[in-house]
Amino acid sequence: MSNSAERIFNFSAGPAVLPLPVLEQAQRDLVALPGVGMSVLEISHRSKVFEEICFGAEADLRRLAGVPDGYHVLFLQGGATLQFSMVPMNLLPKGGGADYVDTGAWSAKAIQEARKVGDVHVAASSKATNHDRIPAAGELAWSAAPAYAHMTSNNTIFGTQYHHLPEPPAGVPLVNDASSDIFCRPLDVSKFGLIYAGAQKNLSIAGLTLVIVRDDLLARAPADLPVYLAYSTHAKERSLYNTPPVFAIYVLRLVLAQLLAEGGLDAVAERNQRKAGKLYAAIDGSGGFYRGHAQPASRSWMNVTYRLPSEELEKLFVREATAAGLDGLKGHRSVGGIRASIYNAFPEAGVDALVAFMAEFQRTHG
Amino acid sequence: MSNSAERIFNFSAGPAVLPLPVLEQAQRDLVALPGVGMSVLEISHRSKVFEEICFGAEADLRRLAGVPDGYHVLFLQGGATLQFSMVPMNLLPKGGGADYVDTGAWSAKAIQEARKVGDVHVAASSKATNHDRIPAAGELAWSAAPAYAHMTSNNTIFGTQYHHLPEPPAGVPLVNDASSDIFCRPLDVSKFGLIYAGAQKNLSIAGLTLVIVRDDLLARAPADLPVYLAYSTHAKERSLYNTPPVFAIYVLRLVLAQLLAEGGLDAVAERNQRKAGKLYAAIDGSGGFYRGHAQPASRSWMNVTYRLPSEELEKLFVREATAAGLDGLKGHRSVGGIRASIYNAFPEAGVDALVAFMAEFQRTHG
Repeated sequence: MSNSAERIFNFSAGPAVLPLPVLEQAQRDLVALPGVGMSVLEISHRSKVFEEICFGAEADLRRLAGVPDGYHVLFLQGGATLQFSMVPMNLLPKGGGADYVDTGAWSAKAIQEARKVGDVHVAASSKATNHDRIPAAGELAWSAAPAYAHMTSNNTIFGTQYHHLPEPPAGVPLVNDASSDIFCRPLDVSKFGLIYAGAQKNLSIAGLTLVIVRDDLLARAPADLPVYLAYSTHAKERSLYNTPPVFAIYVLRLVLAQLLAEGGLDAVAERNQRKAGKLYAAIDGSGGFYRGHAQPASRSWMNVTYRLPSEELEKLFVREATAAGLDGLKGHRSVGGIRASIYNAFPEAGVDALVAFMAEFQRTHG
Repeated sequence: MSNSAERIFNFSAGPAVLPLPVLEQAQRDLVALPGVGMSVLEISHRSKVFEEICFGAEADLRRLAGVPDGYHVLFLQGGATLQFSMVPMNLLPKGGGADYVDTGAWSAKAIQEARKVGDVHVAASSKATNHDRIPAAGELAWSAAPAYAHMTSNNTIFGTQYHHLPEPPAGVPLVNDASSDIFCRPLDVSKFGLIYAGAQKNLSIAGLTLVIVRDDLLARAPADLPVYLAYSTHAKERSLYNTPPVFAIYVLRLVLAQLLAEGGLDAVAERNQRKAGKLYAAIDGSGGFYRGHAQPASRSWMNVTYRLPSEELEKLFVREATAAGLDGLKGHRSVGGIRASIYNAFPEAGVDALVAFMAEFQRTHG
């Protein structure tokens, strides 16, 4: 019934693969939750059944990530795209400005939206080298007193990731778009003022946005902000001001339970580092046949980007890989070549299959 | 496997019941879509598989509702709550005003958000009689030249529904919050400038918002609107500017296919009218034991609200009904008593069960 035998390896950049046990439990209970008599797709968001799911997800998330007291956990909609606007609308005082680090297409979109609200100072940019790296600490030129500093911890298109946190001036809250690497490893939430993440890569399905926000920042928003766009609305009502994305929160809860059962974020990090390490070793050991896009110190554990000797070979690689059950490997047009997205739930067996495929492809076409 | 035998009758005001064949198909394909090898929860929104789902849903929706050329169909997030703000942000020119008809709590929220953007003139209100009716055509006092006129076609809390469209001055676009009665019967889309609806009652699951908007209104938005909040963003990209709520759109498509297979909106209307008619007949035939809240000409086909002789009896009614597998009947505190929500997918057998329960309850407690 579960059809799991039919599953292929899905290297898509997101929405992305979910843990098989999560899919199987969701499937089992889809027509009627045990003891409830209705589907999770049908339950009222004001019901005790859903409160247990929603508050349970929040509690598990706090436990998994060690979210300290003094932070709210919010379940919103609209993706990172709506956060690009909500962050400045909530945190920028009238006439104020914020600092942004530009590490790729998503940073650029965040900057574009913030500019509609206030001044943006770009503290550093990797654009000149096609975003092949995260700017080093010494390159970051902060402005005098920004309202906040914004980073994008992982860059799906370019395959780069922060491995050291930037340090804005004392007292300046750090805001992180963690859509594509949240909970890929332990994190110290207390270093951030606000973390946001679309759920469709490491957390749940598309249609849910996680926001973790420090309580003192909730009061910054102007009083006439649209009610949905004020973080304080959702903080006050524990994400139940209006109907939340019920099923996406249910799936989140299943994913969090899975991560906790696997040993928490330390265990997740160990597996992710091992998975990415196998692919980078395959690239580095190919004698130049495969060339990584990201500079080694900035390499992402989530998205591995690389080129082949020619675009023809890249096309052939994607075509043959797809035929072999390795799907979604075509790189974004900004980089070209190959992108293997290997988020938390991507199985290590899929990485091993790709590594073997790469060796065989090089042997026959190199 | 489908657990359908365990299902109870769910009279919840929303999220609400879905057609059983929809749940069963979603369940069957949840771990791997046939021929795709991944779950619909995991597919990329840029994949051909999802394009077929998303554009197919749009095509089916246009066919079902007879959406004319010259209108865009958008799949958004944030619920009606975000629309309360998006409508004035997109449609109100600087310094402009709009007319709103106040028929209950949701109208009031829409008015509150519009007031943050511009002037609001309340053309009529049913507040003085606890929103027991839709204002008659003669009561509507329009302002001279509103940017648009806003209505709420069905009022879940009070159990009222428009059965004749209001007619604003010539050339003034009519905007309708149809969250709780969309597609409960045929509609003439050409009478509206914009229709919006949270999906969790008649369309799909929570987390999807449908917007049908006339093309000429897309150009009204100021250029510095946040990108997610501009209807034009989503119109240009066919709802794929950012990651849409993939699974909710998939469920929408299954629901639309079901409605089309059942004979379209004429057949849906016939069944809805019959279902509601049975409940109102039970109320009217109870010799005053059950008293409807809504005035007869304004009675909703979707939410049937009524009182019993005492609050003690109401509590007992809800308790005994729940025990009998009739769930979610407690009325909203603004009206008290009983509310039976019987949306499109609510089975007629559940209405019959409630009617029988009402007769038996009156016999033993009347």
